[in-house]
Amino acid sequence: MMTIPLTLNEIAQLAREALAANGCDQQNTDALVRTITTAERDGSASHGLFRLPGYIASLRSGKVNGRAAPTITNDLAAVIKVDGDNGYAPLALEMGVPVLAAAAKTLGIAVMTITHSYHFAALWPEVEALAEQGLIGLACVCYKPVVVPAGGIEPLFGTNPLAYAWPRPGEMPVVIDMATAAMALGEIQVAARDGQAVPLGTGLDEHGAETTDPNEILKGVLLPFGGYKGSGIALLVELLSAGAVGENFSFEAAAGDNNDGGPARGGQFMLAISPELVGGSGWADHCETFFQRYEAINGARLPGLRRHNNRQSTDPRQINAALVERIRDLCG
Amino acid sequence: MMTIPLTLNEIAQLAREALAANGCDQQNTDALVRTITTAERDGSASHGLFRLPGYIASLRSGKVNGRAAPTITNDLAAVIKVDGDNGYAPLALEMGVPVLAAAAKTLGIAVMTITHSYHFAALWPEVEALAEQGLIGLACVCYKPVVVPAGGIEPLFGTNPLAYAWPRPGEMPVVIDMATAAMALGEIQVAARDGQAVPLGTGLDEHGAETTDPNEILKGVLLPFGGYKGSGIALLVELLSAGAVGENFSFEAAAGDNNDGGPARGGQFMLAISPELVGGSGWADHCETFFQRYEAINGARLPGLRRHNNRQSTDPRQINAALVERIRDLCG
Repeated sequence: MMTIPLTLNEIAQLAREALAANGCDQQNTDALVRTITTAERDGSASHGLFRLPGYIASLRSGKVNGRAAPTITNDLAAVIKVDGDNGYAPLALEMGVPVLAAAAKTLGIAVMTITHSYHFAALWPEVEALAEQGLIGLACVCYKPVVVPAGGIEPLFGTNPLAYAWPRPGEMPVVIDMATAAMALGEIQVAARDGQAVPLGTGLDEHGAETTDPNEILKGVLLPFGGYKGSGIALLVELLSAGAVGENFSFEAAAGDNNDGGPARGGQFMLAISPELVGGSGWADHCETFFQRYEAINGARLPGLRRHNNRQSTDPRQINAALVERIRDLCG
Repeated sequence: MMTIPLTLNEIAQLAREALAANGCDQQNTDALVRTITTAERDGSASHGLFRLPGYIASLRSGKVNGRAAPTITNDLAAVIKVDGDNGYAPLALEMGVPVLAAAAKTLGIAVMTITHSYHFAALWPEVEALAEQGLIGLACVCYKPVVVPAGGIEPLFGTNPLAYAWPRPGEMPVVIDMATAAMALGEIQVAARDGQAVPLGTGLDEHGAETTDPNEILKGVLLPFGGYKGSGIALLVELLSAGAVGENFSFEAAAGDNNDGGPARGGQFMLAISPELVGGSGWADHCETFFQRYEAINGARLPGLRRHNNRQSTDPRQINAALVERIRDLCG
């Protein structure tokens, strides 16, 4: 794969130019640029510039509102409802998360739903934003059906990522962001682009047979991680992010989508919990005794470390050259 | 295995007699009898009479208080804290769950913690109790370390079960209760008792080698389900039920236990969410369209069905004969 080095500033500038040239207003552009740049900063290539052509496709098709003005309803103190105004999720999240955090800090726990929104990125930025304020954060979304429920061969679940972040005052939080598919769709797409095989157990081809070819899996179905238990977690994500939010299930998202290459409309479910108010004032020291035990185990690594290490680097990031050229073309 | 048929009434009577003869007061006996009987009713043998000798061992050693009088603190409306008074969990749950449910029905979401408590049963009864009231229920507990974090060979997690229930007005709720270990400890104990092999990937022997012998695994360690993703879910359970509750992590539970054959002291974390208040009035019909799609998939089955089917039977349950004899001896 040919790559070219781009600094984080250059990545931000490229994304900004492409979004502004395709109908995004300042607020929405700023939020999307932050999303793309933090993904590249942390080495999460499948959620960085890789997504930009998709973002632009849905702006151009008119499916997604580049001038969305999300609104927040908070009739019940512990329930924050964000209407995304058919825009991309980052602006809705940047507006909603502070309201969610404030509620959890006062009430001990709060829930946030996002509707009329298009999520096309990772979930860790929003849960990490909660953990940076001393809160436990949890988030999930569903997507078009590509994953079979355990025992079946017909897809029903999206790749249905689930993320949580656990605060560690004075340290980076523990952060997990995992597809409940055996592998994230973005990773399979990157493997397909780069001509790399994926592990057996990732998915089935269009005839229901196991394969290591990501191109065949993209034509077929994915498997949930961890058999029927992982399937149960994928089901929980589907139910929370659609059933509890009042937005599209994965099958509804697919049925309503125009397949322009961008994301389908969907909901997001988020929780914030104050460990101080729920667990008591000793919570942080108590958890630290556990994390120290964890880190002392040979071979075990707390989730999120690799991303947090990538973040320290001020070096340019190596970006797929064909992708950069494609994005420059989209600026015209 | 020799079994003898016992009706649910006979099971309840046997459990009642054994608990009362070993220092349980009426209230605690009633709650434990309901727990044991519903487990046998639903075919969950590893949480029924099978647990009774362990319950009695900890009453006899004085570790668990058979006359516990749990107390509820509810200073913050959305945070219910139950102190179990060092008794078994069922009475604390029967007192706390209605308070939790009432809070969620008013506020949209509420959290409940249980401390100073001994949980030795399944989690599905408490989450199902929430779903029967139209609420989404989620619960988890941790236990003595027997499961390794992904990549490590030293146990840190308990089998750390996670349960949730999703309400379906007019239908049985969808209910999952799963160990985040590859297999529940109770199931491995039953397999060991009955001389049956377990699947490869369930655990490692005391030298860190894979084995299908449940006796070797009971001397060694268990693996989390689903690799590093399942390990991330086991970690979440550990953090919620200990870190957010302010009770023992699994390693602390083991360090503080007298190993009398009963459970170690631990916390419980529970959530209740009102889909009506969070998702809106159309939530039930909306979810039903999804459940119908799920049930139409060949080979896929909604979680909880088998237990709910077992429940319909009024036939006597087949109970291990040696176990019944052992319990009768404990009544003396």
